Amino acid sequence: MQKVAEFTEITPTAPIVATVHGGRAKCLQRLIRLDLPVPRTVAIPFDSVRAIAQGHLPDLEGILEIFGPRPIVSVRSSAETPDWGGPGAILNIGMNDAVTAELAETIGTEAAEALYLRFIRAYALNVARLGDDFLQEAAGGVAAALQAYEAEMEEPFPQDPRLQLAEVLRSMARAWEGTTARLLRQARGAPADAGLGFVIQEMALGIGPAESGSGVIQFVSSETGEPAIIGRYLSQSQGRDALDVPGGALYLTRDPRGPSLEDLAPDAFRKLLEFGATARRGLREEMQIEFTIAAGKPHVIDAVRVPRSSRAGVAIVVRLVRDGIIPREEAILRTEPASLAELLHPQVEKDAPKKVIARGIAASPGAATGRLVFTAAAAQAAAAQGDKAILVRRETGPEDIRGMHAAQGVITERGGMTSHAAVIARGLGLPCVAGAGLRIDFKRRRVIADGHVLSEGDIVTVDGTHGEVLEGAVETRNPALDEAFQELMGWATEFADMKVRANADTPADARVAKNFGADGIGLCRTEHMFFQGDRLTVMREMIFTDEPADRRAALERLLPMQRDDFVELFHIMQGLPVCIRLFDPPLHEFLPHTRDGMRELAEALGKGINDVERRVEELQEFNPMLGLRGVRVGITVPEIYDMQVRAILEAAIISRRNGVPVVPEIMIPLVSAEREVELIRRRVEAVAAEVRADERCDVEFRLGVMVETPRAALRADDIADQSAFLSFGTNDLTQMTYGLSRDDAGRFMSAYVQQGVFREDPFHTLDIEGVGELLSIAASRARNRNAEIVLSVCGEHGGDPDSIAFCRRLGFDYVSCSPYRVPIARLAAARQTLADRLAESGRT
Amino acid sequence: MQKVAEFTEITPTAPIVATVHGGRAKCLQRLIRLDLPVPRTVAIPFDSVRAIAQGHLPDLEGILEIFGPRPIVSVRSSAETPDWGGPGAILNIGMNDAVTAELAETIGTEAAEALYLRFIRAYALNVARLGDDFLQEAAGGVAAALQAYEAEMEEPFPQDPRLQLAEVLRSMARAWEGTTARLLRQARGAPADAGLGFVIQEMALGIGPAESGSGVIQFVSSETGEPAIIGRYLSQSQGRDALDVPGGALYLTRDPRGPSLEDLAPDAFRKLLEFGATARRGLREEMQIEFTIAAGKPHVIDAVRVPRSSRAGVAIVVRLVRDGIIPREEAILRTEPASLAELLHPQVEKDAPKKVIARGIAASPGAATGRLVFTAAAAQAAAAQGDKAILVRRETGPEDIRGMHAAQGVITERGGMTSHAAVIARGLGLPCVAGAGLRIDFKRRRVIADGHVLSEGDIVTVDGTHGEVLEGAVETRNPALDEAFQELMGWATEFADMKVRANADTPADARVAKNFGADGIGLCRTEHMFFQGDRLTVMREMIFTDEPADRRAALERLLPMQRDDFVELFHIMQGLPVCIRLFDPPLHEFLPHTRDGMRELAEALGKGINDVERRVEELQEFNPMLGLRGVRVGITVPEIYDMQVRAILEAAIISRRNGVPVVPEIMIPLVSAEREVELIRRRVEAVAAEVRADERCDVEFRLGVMVETPRAALRADDIADQSAFLSFGTNDLTQMTYGLSRDDAGRFMSAYVQQGVFREDPFHTLDIEGVGELLSIAASRARNRNAEIVLSVCGEHGGDPDSIAFCRRLGFDYVSCSPYRVPIARLAAARQTLADRLAESGRT
Repeated sequence: MQKVAEFTEITPTAPIVATVHGGRAKCLQRLIRLDLPVPRTVAIPFDSVRAIAQGHLPDLEGILEIFGPRPIVSVRSSAETPDWGGPGAILNIGMNDAVTAELAETIGTEAAEALYLRFIRAYALNVARLGDDFLQEAAGGVAAALQAYEAEMEEPFPQDPRLQLAEVLRSMARAWEGTTARLLRQARGAPADAGLGFVIQEMALGIGPAESGSGVIQFVSSETGEPAIIGRYLSQSQGRDALDVPGGALYLTRDPRGPSLEDLAPDAFRKLLEFGATARRGLREEMQIEFTIAAGKPHVIDAVRVPRSSRAGVAIVVRLVRDGIIPREEAILRTEPASLAELLHPQVEKDAPKKVIARGIAASPGAATGRLVFTAAAAQAAAAQGDKAILVRRETGPEDIRGMHAAQGVITERGGMTSHAAVIARGLGLPCVAGAGLRIDFKRRRVIADGHVLSEGDIVTVDGTHGEVLEGAVETRNPALDEAFQELMGWATEFADMKVRANADTPADARVAKNFGADGIGLCRTEHMFFQGDRLTVMREMIFTDEPADRRAALERLLPMQRDDFVELFHIMQGLPVCIRLFDPPLHEFLPHTRDGMRELAEALGKGINDVERRVEELQEFNPMLGLRGVRVGITVPEIYDMQVRAILEAAIISRRNGVPVVPEIMIPLVSAEREVELIRRRVEAVAAEVRADERCDVEFRLGVMVETPRAALRADDIADQSAFLSFGTNDLTQMTYGLSRDDAGRFMSAYVQQGVFREDPFHTLDIEGVGELLSIAASRARNRNAEIVLSVCGEHGGDPDSIAFCRRLGFDYVSCSPYRVPIARLAAARQTLADRLAESGRT
Repeated sequence: MQKVAEFTEITPTAPIVATVHGGRAKCLQRLIRLDLPVPRTVAIPFDSVRAIAQGHLPDLEGILEIFGPRPIVSVRSSAETPDWGGPGAILNIGMNDAVTAELAETIGTEAAEALYLRFIRAYALNVARLGDDFLQEAAGGVAAALQAYEAEMEEPFPQDPRLQLAEVLRSMARAWEGTTARLLRQARGAPADAGLGFVIQEMALGIGPAESGSGVIQFVSSETGEPAIIGRYLSQSQGRDALDVPGGALYLTRDPRGPSLEDLAPDAFRKLLEFGATARRGLREEMQIEFTIAAGKPHVIDAVRVPRSSRAGVAIVVRLVRDGIIPREEAILRTEPASLAELLHPQVEKDAPKKVIARGIAASPGAATGRLVFTAAAAQAAAAQGDKAILVRRETGPEDIRGMHAAQGVITERGGMTSHAAVIARGLGLPCVAGAGLRIDFKRRRVIADGHVLSEGDIVTVDGTHGEVLEGAVETRNPALDEAFQELMGWATEFADMKVRANADTPADARVAKNFGADGIGLCRTEHMFFQGDRLTVMREMIFTDEPADRRAALERLLPMQRDDFVELFHIMQGLPVCIRLFDPPLHEFLPHTRDGMRELAEALGKGINDVERRVEELQEFNPMLGLRGVRVGITVPEIYDMQVRAILEAAIISRRNGVPVVPEIMIPLVSAEREVELIRRRVEAVAAEVRADERCDVEFRLGVMVETPRAALRADDIADQSAFLSFGTNDLTQMTYGLSRDDAGRFMSAYVQQGVFREDPFHTLDIEGVGELLSIAASRARNRNAEIVLSVCGEHGGDPDSIAFCRRLGFDYVSCSPYRVPIARLAAARQTLADRLAESGRT
């Protein structure tokens, strides 16, 4: 059957559908329904545009008839979603020698020729695909352009409007099929078979007598989302000339800097304000309106969503709610959780005094200050001592990942937005300036930039939002949690039926979490507490001791410090739940790995360096991820957990005495067998009994398990018998389910994602089919045995919206994620609740 | 309710049950039913013995009445299983002054006093618990003994048989409850609440007139299981005196070395032969019979299974089948698979000339020859070059495990049967001599033993069966696969409904596998093929090459060598299936790790040492087990698999031309996603198409997946769509399911098993609850999607009887294990089939 291209005039009742005719066609119909002065418009659906690309033209005569006896029209793309793009608009189709002569009588020769010339040039460039030669030759005006066209094409410029329209449609339809256009829109999220529609619209002539011209107007700031009349207007212009043509454009409102539309055409200006208000209420969205004033009368040509920053996005939906235009649910559903990311990082204070040392690519947003280090190892060493480091590298590779984890910010000499450093830094939420204009002198451990010389240990600030490296510590301000943001988050909390906690190890983390409205701490890793200053020495002594009594003595010295850590955390969280994971890393992480470090340790311990070396060697592991860590350390060196549990319980008692009641949650890491839980439970209960006796008061706690091994997931029934909660550590669980070390996967992860082996990096978005399956099996087995059990996910998936949606479907009680991702998670949780509610109400 | 001790006379129809009265009581009843001359016997059940221990005695009068007016009896233990032990027998209860005087009239004073004295001494030692003093004082005879007893006990020796019996019963019942006895029997596999019964038997007096005496007889060799009349007889003795009392015992059959029972009492001897034949046929087992000849008449006192070596065990059951006494099924069910282990290792040739350098503990059986090395690294290096190494260490630790894997045998200076070296060597099937009497001088790399000095590289032979270190290469003989063994294995194959293949990487492995009746090769690891001599250099060149074309060129040189490897394997296996796993290890395993090695490589490659160091560093991994290996190498460096697949297919074509048709199985390792299989499948098919075109003939193959990650198990449905077979690599699957590196687990595994965290080492016996669950999920999902799919287990669990039983329940097609375990696996598979068949027929 021969394909036939169809068309429909857009009237209030015409069957126009966004997925058939495109978003622009639909939007224009909505404007028409609002009785706004939209010029007569015809829509051509996707299928017909495809037919046109294959040579099946629509009834051109029929289309042009709609526009009357002397049609002058534009053709615009109408993709399903405006973001997907499409070929640019072509205006003034229908202009030819005769029409120009006729129009000259009413609007003057100059105006008429301007309209004709615009069309000839657009047609020559976009349809006939002529180039620079033509433009040069055509510079003289209509006659020169017609001549140049004929010279290049060896035929005269087409005079028949039907032929003109046919060629424009065919050219635009084919452009959509081109490889470049296809790749471009796929990069923006369009499917491979995305369709394109056309809208053909009668021209409102912005060129002509009285006040004529065109412009763009919107009623809020794209930056802040605050109300403001923003846009430009250019007399005697068409389309978006007011934005594109340099010089001559007017302000819209009265402005001291120059003339304005409000002065020039106050009636038209007032009309535009009315149109704006109507469109906002009618379309339930802040719109940017493209308008034309034809002989003093404003027309609405087109409208799109106001482009907006993340911050403005939040402000806009909140104001739409306040104005009663949309319900709060819709504000939540309209806000993409990921878009909040840039709001949530500290930024360099706008007006702070600063000295830029180097500029590069703003590869990952946020700001951080620290001491320059040149190797990943140095960054880790700094972190171990509680120092903040900025890692500077020529470029980064997989071997730097651990160092990046440990650093506050990253600077690279080479590379761009898609370099290893940039990708990893964005994933970690670290500010990063890539390809910074500086030179690294590794031998001397210094950086030369713009005449400055910085040495290892010098303090710098990385401004990843603006791509600048700044000298010294520059003032930063915390995330912009303005009123609108807080209001939106309030609604999110109200709608979400799943809580969001934060992974917070330090008081600083805990404060951020509290500030972002976390419902508690879901994962407090305690090991960093052992790396600080003196504590490390004590740890090492303990490791070098073979007798339990001596180990206990060494740990005794750590007890008050640990207790103070917990008291502070409980205080910050003000009674919200705090889940503390018992000691997890392998002991060898605490030992020195250089000969110098070993000598120092030998001196401190009064031992020979050979003893130290031997012990370090003994403790080394082939696969530390799968070695003696987590509960395995807890069982083989039980004194560590004993000390930690005592510190936790004593801290809880102190907190309660200070008026902050807390029931601490104690979590056992890396469990793979029920009996591990049983053994630890017994010791925990023994310590609790001792503490109760010593303190002469009761103390409550909840004991649970971190599910990180596939086996723990499969045996969740038996484990649930003995646990108040299970929290899925999906980082490790992903590593073990795939047999894939996160630290080593960087070497081939990008190749794997490119070849579609993994749809996405499973450390980024939870692998629903594999890891998710284990979560699902575990959840149902655990609940079967212990209906009261609290289930959650901690680990970085806790902050990923898709992963959160999955956890919600499994009915988890909460997710826990890094403090800066708490708002994103809260929003994602709320959206999922609402989306599911909608889906359910749709079904019933 | 007061407990009452009960008793039952053993008659052919009495309700005697092994689990109530013990194995000895039951065995005696069976002998009685065979009409053998067993003296009158009474059984006391477990519950009653427990009551006796608590002071509730049975009706002593009633018991003694059974034995007539002048009862003389023995009491023996009757545990459920003879292995569990029990207090020793006490004879001649009932002897007192009056009975002695009375007996003296019929059998003479000397004989009567001998009986009395024996009882007094046994009573004093075991019931009254008198010690050495008493023995000394009692040495003079009955009168002295009675006096000594009275002196020690301050009361006369009890004369009332009821009192004598009561005390004996009480004493023996209490001994069973003692801690030592309990621990001892638990170590032999008895449950904590194992019961003990008693048998009270009329004494057939081996002391007295005419030919009287006692002895033990059996009708096969305990060593070989071959028919032979073996035992001893002692005139004028009781019980097992013939074995225990030095001097005076006779041979049974006519013997040039001395007098024999056959000479002395030919009638009684003939009778005993008849009894033996009757017992063997009636009890359906080779029995060792305890007999007494009383005044020329032989009595059967007791009988137990003939103790037997593994080899004898096989010979005995096979002969019972041949004689029509038991069916073949029972022969299979009676043979413990694990008992075959010692039959299957090479042994030092008995008569080979040899020079013992050192003797130690025979810690792990078998014999091996190789060059002495002093470090695990040296053992690995030797293995990499195809050399055989014997690792000698002061003692071994977790850091030596990889070296032990690579060595042929292990010698330690220190440690015993339960030392690290011993335990690990037995697990690996490596011969090991522990605590060998030698001294290691590590600095000079030499061993000083018994005046000999051996240096690194010297050849020695380890005889782990006899605990000897031998100089040079000593002749060894292959496992004793005698006729009986072959016959038993034939039956096993007939009954088993699951095949057994071998994991064989080399022609030598393959020959052993074929010899042991493997049904094919289930896992041929190809990586060792790349470590040999020249090949390693080529591999390194390939690793240092960035261009696919250069990599192909390097690999091109390996192709003919790989092809020859496969041609040889196919030839050895003679058309049986061979499953070849594609390249699996991380590339960095092929790079040198010492500075010397790097310099050599730099020279070979014409590069700077810094380049080499950098590349080595780049390729290092934090967790190699979870890194870039297996199919991940196959996808990122596809030229390696291309070469291997071509080598396999060309080898198959060559084999077919040589008259050995083979359909090679190609296995993809470490899969975690369906798409990995898809990508490899496409390349394999492309290579196959090329080979078909080049060789102008068709070639078949089967492509399958090694399931080693939990994710592959969970996604077995999608993977099965594209696979002809799935083989579960349970070693790695166990590592990932537990999050436990086998190389690192040694550090805490024994503590974990001791504390009951893991019931057993999950690398030894398949963890049914966790890993088994994944196997079960995967099997059902895979079959759902692809009913034809072939399922199997490779890895060391393939040789473990319990794991095999589990695989059979899941309906797997085969298991694959190390060649030396093939017979064990075949037997285990047959037993499981038979056991299940029995259970089913029991149900229906």
